Amino acid sequence: MSFKLTILGCHSATPRSLAHTTSQYLEMNNDCFLIDCGEGTQRQLRKYKIKFSKIKHVFISHLHGDHFFGLIGLISTFNLLNRNTELHIYGPKGIKEIILLQLKLSNSWVEYPLHFHELVASQSEIILDNDKVQVHTIPLQHRIYTNGFLFKEKNRPRKLNMSSIDNYPEIDICDYQNLKDGKDFICQDGSIILNKELTYDPPRALSYAYCSDTEYTESIVPLIKETDLLYHESTFLEEHHQLALKTKHSTAKQAGTIARKSNVKKLLLGHYSSRYKSLELFLQEAHQVFEPVELAEAGKEITVTR
Amino acid sequence: MSFKLTILGCHSATPRSLAHTTSQYLEMNNDCFLIDCGEGTQRQLRKYKIKFSKIKHVFISHLHGDHFFGLIGLISTFNLLNRNTELHIYGPKGIKEIILLQLKLSNSWVEYPLHFHELVASQSEIILDNDKVQVHTIPLQHRIYTNGFLFKEKNRPRKLNMSSIDNYPEIDICDYQNLKDGKDFICQDGSIILNKELTYDPPRALSYAYCSDTEYTESIVPLIKETDLLYHESTFLEEHHQLALKTKHSTAKQAGTIARKSNVKKLLLGHYSSRYKSLELFLQEAHQVFEPVELAEAGKEITVTR
Repeated sequence: MSFKLTILGCHSATPRSLAHTTSQYLEMNNDCFLIDCGEGTQRQLRKYKIKFSKIKHVFISHLHGDHFFGLIGLISTFNLLNRNTELHIYGPKGIKEIILLQLKLSNSWVEYPLHFHELVASQSEIILDNDKVQVHTIPLQHRIYTNGFLFKEKNRPRKLNMSSIDNYPEIDICDYQNLKDGKDFICQDGSIILNKELTYDPPRALSYAYCSDTEYTESIVPLIKETDLLYHESTFLEEHHQLALKTKHSTAKQAGTIARKSNVKKLLLGHYSSRYKSLELFLQEAHQVFEPVELAEAGKEITVTR
Repeated sequence: MSFKLTILGCHSATPRSLAHTTSQYLEMNNDCFLIDCGEGTQRQLRKYKIKFSKIKHVFISHLHGDHFFGLIGLISTFNLLNRNTELHIYGPKGIKEIILLQLKLSNSWVEYPLHFHELVASQSEIILDNDKVQVHTIPLQHRIYTNGFLFKEKNRPRKLNMSSIDNYPEIDICDYQNLKDGKDFICQDGSIILNKELTYDPPRALSYAYCSDTEYTESIVPLIKETDLLYHESTFLEEHHQLALKTKHSTAKQAGTIARKSNVKKLLLGHYSSRYKSLELFLQEAHQVFEPVELAEAGKEITVTR
């Protein structure tokens, strides 16, 4: 069990020569997710040789342009490439209207199944749930309705402890599934053998939390607790603390504080304002409060394994 | 008098690593025009060091994505750059609804005057007319409502022939403007001195015709007659003639034929389909019917002078 995150863009506001607006590509247990889709994302996908057809689910955090202006182009390109597999779009209410209006006016209806899942809840909810992965929203505090997303591997079945099981002839092969599911074994005489005596813990399930854009808010801490990787926006440095407050963004130090309070394994910074020439200062500032920090950079791949 | 055209993108369908979708930047008599605006156009503008603030007028030929998916991003970026000068958008009916819906849902109203000029006419019309330049629509035949655009310098005043004027003491300085405007001079005795005796022809006004996307149609010939530079789409080569017919595009040979029938000074090809590895074949094919042909390429600048 492992997941791989590829940064396609990690700057705020507008695309510039060397600064791509937000988009990330996540592979987790054979599911491939696109997270946000700034203008030019389809070019970045090509640049990093990511197969378009693998993307089945697109998550849009909010409707500011640097997070979704590339979506209509990607949807159209999928059609030109004769896609026939379904595509699911998760994003704030209104996203369906924007996309359908553009398809209507260009007389370019897509020929693959396109499903919209519009989000309106202010509490965390499960928006995708298959046999291997669950995706939860992380309600964020920004200038408009915004969600982060928590991608969680499903827990695997418990592992059988065969040397222990062999001590109990009453336990049959047909009981194994119940043991893997965590159930205790009840003997014919009514006595109970505890599950933990018969199985090992499964490999711990991994998780990735994506939080962009948001002001500093500890309300997300319970949701992202112990996460293996946390991407938390850091648009500003502390010297522009007031600007962060005003625009409802975070500083690198605030991102570090959230990471520490959430006891995550690693913090990834991004969504940098263009006013800073060097990104090194973001790293230094977050390091003041939290050690395992990395900078997002276009093209960077981060693989998380157990 | 001269004009300069910069190609920002000239490929059809979808942006790829080395293929930018359609956009052009035209400087004519201090007016700066953006013509079409595929996804990624703002990055191309930066790459070729074109000042965003110089663009006052944007012309959108039609609402297929490869010609306008970059517009909302550009409009938003203008706002982030604190633009305060007005911006005029000319394009098919519906363009205003698309842009305003996206601004509304992102709660990002622009703070500069944004004017929409929606086009519905099926006949050529004048859509911009200032003291130096006129812009006419060129109705095209495509799968959806589409216009090309004809950019025409205004004729300059006639030049005074002072050595001739000096022979007529009756002509005073206050008569010069009438002579420049082409009027004959009426003497006190009622006799007439013809204007052509007193003035020279002014420098010939230049013109640029932009025609993308369209099937082969001779209906445009009277509109673009004698144009100094004609951009005519050539999505296909003749070997895919049937595909051009079906998708309402043109071949390079058809573009050459239109150029010949219109007696333009130079033809510029573009809007190439991605199926062709070499663009040289487009040049060769157009050459069969028309000699002065150039290929559009991203970054190419074409200056037309008298």
